[in-house]
Amino acid sequence: MIKTENKKIGKQSFRLKQPPVITAWASVAGKKESEGPLAQHFDITNPDSYFGQKTWEQAERKMQQNALYTLTRKANINIRDLGAVCSGDLLNQCIGSSFPLRNMQIPHLGLYGACSTMAESLIVAAMAVDGGFLENVAAMTSSHFATSERQYRFPLNYSGQRPPTSQWTVTGAGAALLSRNGAGPKITGCTIGTIVDLGIKDANNMGAAMAPAAFDTIKTHFSDFKTSPEDYDLIVTGDLGQIGKEILIELCKKNNIPIGGKITDCGCLVYDNITQGVNAGGSGCGCSAITLCGYLLNKIQNKEIKNLLFCGTGALLSPVSTMQGLPIPAVCHAVVIEGEHA
Amino acid sequence: MIKTENKKIGKQSFRLKQPPVITAWASVAGKKESEGPLAQHFDITNPDSYFGQKTWEQAERKMQQNALYTLTRKANINIRDLGAVCSGDLLNQCIGSSFPLRNMQIPHLGLYGACSTMAESLIVAAMAVDGGFLENVAAMTSSHFATSERQYRFPLNYSGQRPPTSQWTVTGAGAALLSRNGAGPKITGCTIGTIVDLGIKDANNMGAAMAPAAFDTIKTHFSDFKTSPEDYDLIVTGDLGQIGKEILIELCKKNNIPIGGKITDCGCLVYDNITQGVNAGGSGCGCSAITLCGYLLNKIQNKEIKNLLFCGTGALLSPVSTMQGLPIPAVCHAVVIEGEHA
Repeated sequence: MIKTENKKIGKQSFRLKQPPVITAWASVAGKKESEGPLAQHFDITNPDSYFGQKTWEQAERKMQQNALYTLTRKANINIRDLGAVCSGDLLNQCIGSSFPLRNMQIPHLGLYGACSTMAESLIVAAMAVDGGFLENVAAMTSSHFATSERQYRFPLNYSGQRPPTSQWTVTGAGAALLSRNGAGPKITGCTIGTIVDLGIKDANNMGAAMAPAAFDTIKTHFSDFKTSPEDYDLIVTGDLGQIGKEILIELCKKNNIPIGGKITDCGCLVYDNITQGVNAGGSGCGCSAITLCGYLLNKIQNKEIKNLLFCGTGALLSPVSTMQGLPIPAVCHAVVIEGEHA
Repeated sequence: MIKTENKKIGKQSFRLKQPPVITAWASVAGKKESEGPLAQHFDITNPDSYFGQKTWEQAERKMQQNALYTLTRKANINIRDLGAVCSGDLLNQCIGSSFPLRNMQIPHLGLYGACSTMAESLIVAAMAVDGGFLENVAAMTSSHFATSERQYRFPLNYSGQRPPTSQWTVTGAGAALLSRNGAGPKITGCTIGTIVDLGIKDANNMGAAMAPAAFDTIKTHFSDFKTSPEDYDLIVTGDLGQIGKEILIELCKKNNIPIGGKITDCGCLVYDNITQGVNAGGSGCGCSAITLCGYLLNKIQNKEIKNLLFCGTGALLSPVSTMQGLPIPAVCHAVVIEGEHA
């Protein structure tokens, strides 16, 4: 028996000793997303918000299935050869993630991290692969504008007003395949988030609720890994949107963390905020998922950037907690992704 | 750098090379549970279904907090020294698990595996500890009769009839602490479940929906580990209840797996089905959580049994999927727990 090496550094972080390789990635996106600035990076787009299904919830199932099939096709493996799927979504009881895997004979670890799920699933998958427990693990998540609106806020037909701070839930699914060997970007370090709650109660201002969690995890990450923003080509938060991103930059400035030139946010990348009428930007599990499993990983693959700190942010509210007058707890998980030749 | 050893066996299973030790466990239970046959094994019981809070959802938060405080007290560590908490629950967006950790500065991995969550959280925590990524990781879950009834079925005041196949959601929270060193039962192997759906659509008969998933995982477990029921002192399913347990036994009989004398089910242990009026038995994440983190782990500790195959079962339905006429997918995760001197 070999003695397990301690990979833990600091309280929240660990290094991967044999960094799992992201050998393939895939993204599926809806109509609005396919009209945005990242359109060329999506593998599958569909102008039909139902994706050929009878309900939007089933459309979300279909998107995840499409992402998984595309992922395994790109990785040149059979879908039933997937070692496991680590996935979750925003729907009550995560039915967007369980229904796609019915009778597929694929081991499944269900996750709930709200919009931080893409990062959380990468962390769990990376532990499973680096630890030697599993091989060929897919990290996946999705969200759908229509399922989210009617679950969290109002039925779409109600035509509720959207305040300027509101964000637009991305319709899309993203998946990444983690393997022990192969070519592709590598996951070299992770920082698991703690739950931060500064008392924001406005469910239409989730960027403000999540920014302190993003700040907390990013600060901890730099401290644990003894790095600074200049060590990364890009620091990308999940879906803070314009308002949350500005709060994060302000928090960093106050704490002498020079993040300014490096920071961007998936919620600000995925849509053209001005012409697409999305108010503060994109959100939802699918927001960081399709931005990562397309635009960002392509950027590393094409050697436009060497590395990336991917920080998934999640607002852990529910309509029940909101109606009961509770504030919005938030979490942010960070993952270091490095190019093969970084 | 050391080469990671492959711990994976078969498609769904892995061994733990340095088996994480369950150094402490804690359980919190409600009134009905404290009147049942396992009463003496619970650390905290409370006759108030609100646990001193204003809402039942907040009661669930309180139960998890109590479980965590009791756990760390029993393990003689400060709650802020927890390396991470892997937890989830049945509430929409898992607010029973995120709210207890607000501003506690404890890294959190949120899970959703419905009533299989206790087993799933043990698996993720075991990978994190054995892999050297984290230390002192709590695996935790909870459920509450009142929050579940109003979320999944009807408001309690409606006094809906409960069919004979229905199960009673346990009010309780259970937590286990996994460490690299120390004394206590060890987790030596895990089998991750796949999602099985044989088309059961009756949300009041979840035992029948989950039994095929339990059968699938148990059969795979024996095959992967090359073991048989006689290698275990006890095989305990999560919350199949009386009907689901009988279906599982029937499935095993048909497939020549002699599970009969070894099988029991947390849903059949936690209440006295005859005098407590729970119809087919107990259910909910809390069911297997308080049965494990009390009665079962005590049994190992007291050397009444040497080892245990703990099989958490989860029905991955949501009220939306039920109302949309979809069947109930189910999952079962299995964990081998062995006594120190097994």
